[in-house]
Amino acid sequence: MVILDGKAISAQIRAELAEKVKVLKAAGKKVPHLAAILVGDDGASRTYVNAKVLDCEEVGFGSTLINLPSETTEAELLKAINRLNNDKNIDGYIVQLPLPKHIDETKVLLAVDPKKDVDGFHPENVGKMTLNLPTYIPATPQGIVEILRRYNVPTEGKDCVVIGRSHIVGSPISILLSQHNYPGNCTVTLCHSRTKDLKQVCQKADIIIVALGSPGFVTADMVKEGACVIDVGITRMDDASKKSGFRLLGDVDYETVAPKCSFITPVPGGVGPMTRAALMMNTMKVTELI
Amino acid sequence: MVILDGKAISAQIRAELAEKVKVLKAAGKKVPHLAAILVGDDGASRTYVNAKVLDCEEVGFGSTLINLPSETTEAELLKAINRLNNDKNIDGYIVQLPLPKHIDETKVLLAVDPKKDVDGFHPENVGKMTLNLPTYIPATPQGIVEILRRYNVPTEGKDCVVIGRSHIVGSPISILLSQHNYPGNCTVTLCHSRTKDLKQVCQKADIIIVALGSPGFVTADMVKEGACVIDVGITRMDDASKKSGFRLLGDVDYETVAPKCSFITPVPGGVGPMTRAALMMNTMKVTELI
Repeated sequence: MVILDGKAISAQIRAELAEKVKVLKAAGKKVPHLAAILVGDDGASRTYVNAKVLDCEEVGFGSTLINLPSETTEAELLKAINRLNNDKNIDGYIVQLPLPKHIDETKVLLAVDPKKDVDGFHPENVGKMTLNLPTYIPATPQGIVEILRRYNVPTEGKDCVVIGRSHIVGSPISILLSQHNYPGNCTVTLCHSRTKDLKQVCQKADIIIVALGSPGFVTADMVKEGACVIDVGITRMDDASKKSGFRLLGDVDYETVAPKCSFITPVPGGVGPMTRAALMMNTMKVTELI
Repeated sequence: MVILDGKAISAQIRAELAEKVKVLKAAGKKVPHLAAILVGDDGASRTYVNAKVLDCEEVGFGSTLINLPSETTEAELLKAINRLNNDKNIDGYIVQLPLPKHIDETKVLLAVDPKKDVDGFHPENVGKMTLNLPTYIPATPQGIVEILRRYNVPTEGKDCVVIGRSHIVGSPISILLSQHNYPGNCTVTLCHSRTKDLKQVCQKADIIIVALGSPGFVTADMVKEGACVIDVGITRMDDASKKSGFRLLGDVDYETVAPKCSFITPVPGGVGPMTRAALMMNTMKVTELI
């Protein structure tokens, strides 16, 4: 059983990007600059955004954090987005989700210039991904593809079951792994709340990708001997014994599932850090796609 | 066994659209106007485009057929597209595919104004479809969804196998039927050339959608008793006994498969006419989406 070490791979990716930044600098070229808009003060969101800024510093990208109060109106947010669209110094930016309830997320996503949409959430970029054209791929599916690639996990002709059909993980990873690429060329089954006999469906899978946010959902009896299991779940649970005050739980019952697997991602240290690294990869891509 | 009668349903749809056109006219509103660009003189393409013009006439839409010679350059075609983008009289248009080999199809698709892209092939519209936002859905998957809806075919929780992952049929219908809609909420498995044990995969399916262009590909031994089978294949075969000189073959071995089915589309008279009707529905949608 091989543990897919997202922490190690993401460090490797950051080191590679740092090298590329040096090359850009040496050639007198512009270094990518990432901005992040954070509306309000949700603890988890703040942690994520801060991590992104730290990642930028490590690889040598420029970064700007725009923190707007939680009472920011939709119009004010759209104005801030418009400023970023027109700011030549900013190559890419993200709007940290979720947004406060009084703001229409779809309207906000549509306002982001697709060329600067390093989250890959704008319909034009989602469409390019679906059509297998060069574009920004959303960070979590991109991170999953990248870790499969770096560990040479076999995917061609494999039966892949994706659990969860969210727009940011389940749906895009199901599309990507169906395509005529490596990693890809899987026979993908996309499962969700309406799926009957989920256990049986999973039992036949060579690759299981679970993105539900439901701790311990995938149990050993659902997993075939030798399967590859990718755990996207990150649920915070209070834990006074931790310095942070919480611990992270995945969607896979790791202790019982791992011994059956050919490959498995741990939580933490699997898909999470790969998601962070993928955002940095997308930010570097700005220099290639435009 | 119910034959899903695409010919009858498409006539019904055209009649409904004709009623809507009358209402628009009575209200003094603009009636949708569809243009089609045909490059070269491929026989099948000409037949399709002519059919679309006839459909427009029947429902009362305006229509314009722009026939460019096969030696048209990419630049000339892009100019023609630009003219349509800026022509206020044209509400929607299609560029008939395939294009001659010297023209880059992707570049052409990207040049179409997404607001006038009634084929739903522009990445922005493909992305909106993937994100379950209102948009133009490509005609064939849209036609399939519509015939399932009109016959109240049960889809929620059903195992659906899609054979073929093309950008215009297999991929989009797999996405649509996975979504939280009716028709939809299926557990979809997308199969293709790299799928192993396709026969076994199909045998478990409640719904099979085949879009390969491989006559008679789906045989009775692949189909579960009571399945719904949607045949997207349209292959022309020379047949001197027909007035047209050819007959149309589907991807399903109809004679042996049909008796096992709960629902099945015939070829011809199934998905083909629904595809035509879906383009008319999209053209009417212009008045709603903008």
